[in-house]
Amino acid sequence: MNAILQSLRDRKSVRAYDARPVEPEVKRAILEAALQAPTAGNMTLYTIIDVTDQRLKETLAVTCDDQPFIARAPLVLVFCADYSRWFAAFAADCPETRRPSHGDFLLACCDALIAAQNAVVAAEALGLGSVYIGDIMERYETHRELLGLPRYVVPVTMLCFGYPTEQQRRRQKPPRFRVEDIVCENRYQPRDIRRMVAARQGIEDEEELRRWFDVFRRRKWDSDFSSEMSRSVREMLADWTGE
Amino acid sequence: MNAILQSLRDRKSVRAYDARPVEPEVKRAILEAALQAPTAGNMTLYTIIDVTDQRLKETLAVTCDDQPFIARAPLVLVFCADYSRWFAAFAADCPETRRPSHGDFLLACCDALIAAQNAVVAAEALGLGSVYIGDIMERYETHRELLGLPRYVVPVTMLCFGYPTEQQRRRQKPPRFRVEDIVCENRYQPRDIRRMVAARQGIEDEEELRRWFDVFRRRKWDSDFSSEMSRSVREMLADWTGE
Repeated sequence: MNAILQSLRDRKSVRAYDARPVEPEVKRAILEAALQAPTAGNMTLYTIIDVTDQRLKETLAVTCDDQPFIARAPLVLVFCADYSRWFAAFAADCPETRRPSHGDFLLACCDALIAAQNAVVAAEALGLGSVYIGDIMERYETHRELLGLPRYVVPVTMLCFGYPTEQQRRRQKPPRFRVEDIVCENRYQPRDIRRMVAARQGIEDEEELRRWFDVFRRRKWDSDFSSEMSRSVREMLADWTGE
Repeated sequence: MNAILQSLRDRKSVRAYDARPVEPEVKRAILEAALQAPTAGNMTLYTIIDVTDQRLKETLAVTCDDQPFIARAPLVLVFCADYSRWFAAFAADCPETRRPSHGDFLLACCDALIAAQNAVVAAEALGLGSVYIGDIMERYETHRELLGLPRYVVPVTMLCFGYPTEQQRRRQKPPRFRVEDIVCENRYQPRDIRRMVAARQGIEDEEELRRWFDVFRRRKWDSDFSSEMSRSVREMLADWTGE
């Protein structure tokens, strides 16, 4: 198999890192790869915050749903959707120009996420592990303050990077759903997530499957972080759109 | 340079395709690569719609801001953020569970975009060109109807793929902004987009720079597609959140 496809297939989340620091040239290569990603109108509608301050890492480890490993990650990058730079220029030239709205918010989020995944792919190619921290979307007011974000700049994802420990290198990647479960031809087709999970997890017993969903729902949906993410993103959008 | 980093660096948008169709095993490899992407809680919060119907491609070429090349793309994939499958199971088990909200919307968009960029990287590795069509976020009501999307499924991006024409292969990749322009250490630092553009485009004359921004603003900001995207995404969110 093509080495690039193999690398995309092998990549799994890594949350435990070797003591080995990330060399400056390796960090630079990851950032360069992020910036080479496709971007709407070549506008680069994002800003990357490189968190080098250990105290800030420690705070983020708490504010991002209490995940202490964040503070131990040698490289932490926050990807912010950013329309502030462009809007400032547009409004200076044309005071009656329209204000940033919902579509601009989502388009800038697209740009930031596409760049983030390039960073992940580059890191894997350089032997580094990575993990997405969606929890940076929580506690918007706190993160805005911590990172000094002006209006039209919002954190949409965070990535932790580091060389994986031996145990992490050995850890098996959790199996994904099958192409047949996720891809539809021409028109949306509803799929039964229970059957998808049963097949993926190898669960044959209905009672066991019921318990799996019950535990999962409490952990991922009816959970504090999940409610907080929804509150926080609503606030983010209200602030961005002025609605 | 590492072959993967080189591939990320070389990749540019391709909007003109060879007559050569995309072989089924190549399409399969692209879809498999997308599904191997990181996904929140291993939930795969997206659905990919593989547009094989030529009439549907032709319609999308019109509804996505009148871009006729879309109808000539051998492979067209619509990436939809999708919480419908999981929410159906959660609500069946626990009728009083919370409803999908803003955070779930953005988290599912993250999943879809991360997967989309894996598809782009895989395509490049296989010799195919690709281009993002953000305009699939426009005309939400029309696209929902065309693709048969239920509630909690929204189109967030579209990708066109095909083998590049000779002219496209030769086309130079538009230069990106520099790492220094986009990356901040620990705290957001405002940057002057005028100076960034002047450096990137090699514009030394202030009047020329003023004209560049004027043309660009009219094309990308005070434009019909841009206002429509904002209207459409507002509607998408209202439909998703019930607010």
